[in-house]
Amino acid sequence: MEGLQKQFVVGVDIGGQTSKIGLVDARGDVLFQNVIRTDIYGEDADAYIKDLAEAIKACVEQGGKQLEEVRGVGVGAPNGNYYTGEIAFAPNIVWAANHAVPFSKLLSEALDGMPVSLTNDANAAAVGEMAYGAARGMKNFIMITLGTGVGSGIVIDGKVVYGSDGFAGELGHTCVERKNGRPCGCGKTGCLEAYCSAMGIARTAREWLEATDEPSSLRDLDNISSKDIFDAAKAGDAMALRLFEYTGTILGRSFADFVAFSAPEAIVLFGGLARAKEFLYEPMKRAMEDNLLKIWKGKVQIVFSQLKESDAAILGASALAWEL
Amino acid sequence: MEGLQKQFVVGVDIGGQTSKIGLVDARGDVLFQNVIRTDIYGEDADAYIKDLAEAIKACVEQGGKQLEEVRGVGVGAPNGNYYTGEIAFAPNIVWAANHAVPFSKLLSEALDGMPVSLTNDANAAAVGEMAYGAARGMKNFIMITLGTGVGSGIVIDGKVVYGSDGFAGELGHTCVERKNGRPCGCGKTGCLEAYCSAMGIARTAREWLEATDEPSSLRDLDNISSKDIFDAAKAGDAMALRLFEYTGTILGRSFADFVAFSAPEAIVLFGGLARAKEFLYEPMKRAMEDNLLKIWKGKVQIVFSQLKESDAAILGASALAWEL
Repeated sequence: MEGLQKQFVVGVDIGGQTSKIGLVDARGDVLFQNVIRTDIYGEDADAYIKDLAEAIKACVEQGGKQLEEVRGVGVGAPNGNYYTGEIAFAPNIVWAANHAVPFSKLLSEALDGMPVSLTNDANAAAVGEMAYGAARGMKNFIMITLGTGVGSGIVIDGKVVYGSDGFAGELGHTCVERKNGRPCGCGKTGCLEAYCSAMGIARTAREWLEATDEPSSLRDLDNISSKDIFDAAKAGDAMALRLFEYTGTILGRSFADFVAFSAPEAIVLFGGLARAKEFLYEPMKRAMEDNLLKIWKGKVQIVFSQLKESDAAILGASALAWEL
Repeated sequence: MEGLQKQFVVGVDIGGQTSKIGLVDARGDVLFQNVIRTDIYGEDADAYIKDLAEAIKACVEQGGKQLEEVRGVGVGAPNGNYYTGEIAFAPNIVWAANHAVPFSKLLSEALDGMPVSLTNDANAAAVGEMAYGAARGMKNFIMITLGTGVGSGIVIDGKVVYGSDGFAGELGHTCVERKNGRPCGCGKTGCLEAYCSAMGIARTAREWLEATDEPSSLRDLDNISSKDIFDAAKAGDAMALRLFEYTGTILGRSFADFVAFSAPEAIVLFGGLARAKEFLYEPMKRAMEDNLLKIWKGKVQIVFSQLKESDAAILGASALAWEL
């Protein structure tokens, strides 16, 4: 099939439970999607990668294209390292939890030498927003992903910051509480992620419910999720509303510190918890403005992802592949 | 004098009291130095710039060179903006305290069109360390200047980060104390600068002396400076030693958060307070390591400027001029 132009890319978004695969064209349209499980392979990374390669081939074929038309595969994964191509010590991915998997190399081999580019999920989301979403035209912004954890992707002068080792942009693990801070999954205490992730806000709810006897619809639930708090806030539950006020305030204060680092045009928010925009925006914005230096007051936007959540991660990962 | 190669640059370091001028060759040797006052012009920026231009011409001449051999002038100044060439709202510079001075344009005009490049003093120091000092060969590091205030210059992939507006890198104004934080000169409270500058450590000393009756040689002084605390620590004064322990701990914690941003190879320290290396290093290093994510533990150096303090700012500013 010589002479075929490589007009398509594949984006892969690896999550703890599922891996989403998309065939994407140059305009950012997802032509076909596919999904496999991430969590049924135990520690066998090779078995996962073999199935992923098959699913990629199937996705391309079912999208009506040939593998020869695909320029490369871009992958976003927790702890994915852009420089080394490894997924290493990713707590939520069993086959990469305890060691480093040379992911890009193995996947490329399983795809007959197809180029593979890897980064972490938040960086992929940042690339996606820059290429197709809320950050189009921006050269300097900070992507914050509010999901199970808090991730970040920092863009300066149009490029994702990878730092000296490929791991730059772990803003979820900057400190928001020095004294008696909550333990974080990372082993430290007081991290932003321990307060402002979907897990964090649910934990704040449990703490408040235990510490008071304030009536709240949340009291009736066995296992509170951030979605429950969102629903309760929409129904007017006073504690749920204060939970967003509290969480948004912590986020906004942290954003002000992030601005002092790279002077971005905007903070771009993405992820499950960011859906609660109507309750988070006001306290975030207020706390950020209160804590900005004068030179930045009124100048830094807080914007929300404009990409469909199911597409964003795939699009971001796929955008990496255009650089291959 | 056509045909003369432009083998020299001039570096200017503008401080609140004096402005230092140096003629520099390509190897980073300062061939001749000159100094004028910054603080005797009231609000008359034009008069200052006229005298500065004369002093630059005199410096070149006394260094045995001609103006035609000078490629350009690099200037480091508080609140100097790389993009706009303005010095704006610099509290310690009377002629630029209340408005924006189009500095690069005016100085270039006063020097018959010679190119002028401006940045803030901490960014200039970062460029100097990268070109001639402790950061030679490093592509990713964070310069922290511990002087009257706390400044910062962030280098990523070999380039100073200016952000969307030229003001990036104000790490001295990130928050280290959310509750009842000290007022900072910037109008906010709890800033790193309010605790860890030369002014900050002196203030901590005064607070501790007032709050306790612990004996200390510092008690006999009318107006405690950071130099006094350094001297007292060298003489074994227990409170002075604890003051450095306290200050270094706050710095180290902040460094851990900065590392989470850009994953630098090193934090490079410069400025008057950094002279107290023997007392600051241990607590800084310990607090940083305690607060780093596992991936960075043991991997980020804390190093001290290797440049003579009198030369460093001039060299840094001059290095800007090579890019002209």
